[in-house]
Amino acid sequence: MRAARFYGKEDIRIENVAEQKCSAGQIRVAPAYVGICGTDLHEFLGGPNFAPTNPHPVTQETIPITLGHEFSGVVTELGPGVSSFLVGQQVVVQPTIYCDACQACRVGAENVCSNGGFIGLSGGGGGLSDSVVVPERAVLRLPDNVPLDVGALVEPLSVAWHAISASPLAKDSVVLILGGGPIGLAIVQCLVSLGTKKIIVSEVSSSRQRFAREFGAHHVVDPKTYDLVAISKELSGSDGPNIVFDCAGVPASLTTACTAVKARGTVVNVAIWEKEVPFNPNMLVFREAKYTAVLGYQRKDFQAVIDQIAAGHLKPSKMITSKIRLEDLVEGGIKALINDKESHVKILVEVGGMNRVDSGVH
Amino acid sequence: MRAARFYGKEDIRIENVAEQKCSAGQIRVAPAYVGICGTDLHEFLGGPNFAPTNPHPVTQETIPITLGHEFSGVVTELGPGVSSFLVGQQVVVQPTIYCDACQACRVGAENVCSNGGFIGLSGGGGGLSDSVVVPERAVLRLPDNVPLDVGALVEPLSVAWHAISASPLAKDSVVLILGGGPIGLAIVQCLVSLGTKKIIVSEVSSSRQRFAREFGAHHVVDPKTYDLVAISKELSGSDGPNIVFDCAGVPASLTTACTAVKARGTVVNVAIWEKEVPFNPNMLVFREAKYTAVLGYQRKDFQAVIDQIAAGHLKPSKMITSKIRLEDLVEGGIKALINDKESHVKILVEVGGMNRVDSGVH
Repeated sequence: MRAARFYGKEDIRIENVAEQKCSAGQIRVAPAYVGICGTDLHEFLGGPNFAPTNPHPVTQETIPITLGHEFSGVVTELGPGVSSFLVGQQVVVQPTIYCDACQACRVGAENVCSNGGFIGLSGGGGGLSDSVVVPERAVLRLPDNVPLDVGALVEPLSVAWHAISASPLAKDSVVLILGGGPIGLAIVQCLVSLGTKKIIVSEVSSSRQRFAREFGAHHVVDPKTYDLVAISKELSGSDGPNIVFDCAGVPASLTTACTAVKARGTVVNVAIWEKEVPFNPNMLVFREAKYTAVLGYQRKDFQAVIDQIAAGHLKPSKMITSKIRLEDLVEGGIKALINDKESHVKILVEVGGMNRVDSGVH
Repeated sequence: MRAARFYGKEDIRIENVAEQKCSAGQIRVAPAYVGICGTDLHEFLGGPNFAPTNPHPVTQETIPITLGHEFSGVVTELGPGVSSFLVGQQVVVQPTIYCDACQACRVGAENVCSNGGFIGLSGGGGGLSDSVVVPERAVLRLPDNVPLDVGALVEPLSVAWHAISASPLAKDSVVLILGGGPIGLAIVQCLVSLGTKKIIVSEVSSSRQRFAREFGAHHVVDPKTYDLVAISKELSGSDGPNIVFDCAGVPASLTTACTAVKARGTVVNVAIWEKEVPFNPNMLVFREAKYTAVLGYQRKDFQAVIDQIAAGHLKPSKMITSKIRLEDLVEGGIKALINDKESHVKILVEVGGMNRVDSGVH
């Protein structure tokens, strides 16, 4: 079968590899659509980062590994003992790999498992292949009214949903989002689906500003032009937003988040940071604010997003800005995003060749 | 009347000044015991910091101001309209000054009032005088079984109570406290009074280590000798403490707090910081931890501490390590603490001359 395999920095190869065996408790999925993620770009440009160079504690694999962790697909085989799915069902894979043994796993925080990883980054196959075998617990049913291409958006939307779940969001919350990349835009959409009163996005790129508006942000502010802290207080009609999501992860966003948020408000950090940054905790002290960090998602976030899409509250198909073939992954996907990431929200790789209903390109 | 007045750096004078007028809604209190606080030391050594050099937005006063914000006393006069107190009652003063008009005040977070201050630091008189006039809302009744010297401890204990209230403390929580100064030790005592399962204190000073043990910490660790992160995980019997209180406010304590805390745990910052420090938010990200900042206290914290003392759950009298006269404030109080702060927890200034029951020196 075909698989997009990551060998190291700037080295992704579409190869023919053997299919994995589908053992007890496992499900074989034929990936349909696979989103390309910022993490994939980081691996390509500067990796291996996530991709293991020593045997991964759970998968025991090292590079080369198959890429693709945001994907939908169709069940093609059930391992012994699997009874909750049927061959032919459309599904989404929640790619978190976890050990079930560490303290985090024991308290139900498997998304911060100390031995954790991701299908499509840490071994155990990946979505960018004709077939992938995953544990039954990683698979979620996609309702009939949710097309497979939209299914590939469940993963980034679940990052957003998980971040929002860590915040004290209420109907009348004023929310500021720093950064209008794919995750910031996913947060906008989830907030819209939840009926949030006021959503403000800070973003410098004009194309991303446009996406933010299209996706339902009530105010989009260019922080190079405006004093974001002052304007977000003004737009809040109080001393600032109730909640600030930092999706940028740079020194300026940390300071802005901690000085824009209102008294007793909450900053949710959704970013992964490249290095230490200067920080004065007094920014939080003098407003008694909270700084909450989140990582990834859990199965319940996937289910909530799927339910929200199926119910028609969340209509994310316009996140899909391009669809490419597996063979075009590097040129039409990875490099296209590296060279012009601001024109795209999500590029999907169409892996399967079967006829299916999808929602088109938007 | 006598008053200890702060004129500026290293300039505190015990002077004769006129008494304030006791107007409508105000209560005159004759201070009995007044604790000397780290903030007083900071003013003396490097101030004015809190003390206003421009008219304070609420009190309209500038230096010189009367010091003393941790105090008990006896009601000596009731302004017109005050009906909830009687002359002769023993009371504690909650010294927060707030404007009632800013956004923080409007949401009930008057402790982070943007125009806020403290009686005894921002004008409006202070405890280190023979008489102080305060708003009725600042006064809390001291039950008959709580001596006046213990009453002067309610303020620092309320800082601790407020910080604990911001944490998700449960009976089975494992708590790590970084720094065994007066606030760290107040947290220890409040945690003990609440029946906390395991209390670990990190402190380098041997005398403060001794205090921490006396006050009920279950484990006292010298972070210069031991790997605090490793030992606190071991003592937790899991991946770390549920809650870490940072009472140190230095780069090392920030890093220790954020790497010691368990997955989904909470760091509560109780410190005021002198400057920016290096910070990598990934420390919180990879354990989905929360960082919560608190400042001061609210009336409800004072009431809870008084109730806890009156009920016999909190027995803080051993915090009092010395009692001095008002005339000895600088030499026997401020300078004694500057030169040997680790031998003391709390030095009380005995202001009143009347006979009264207290709990002695411990």
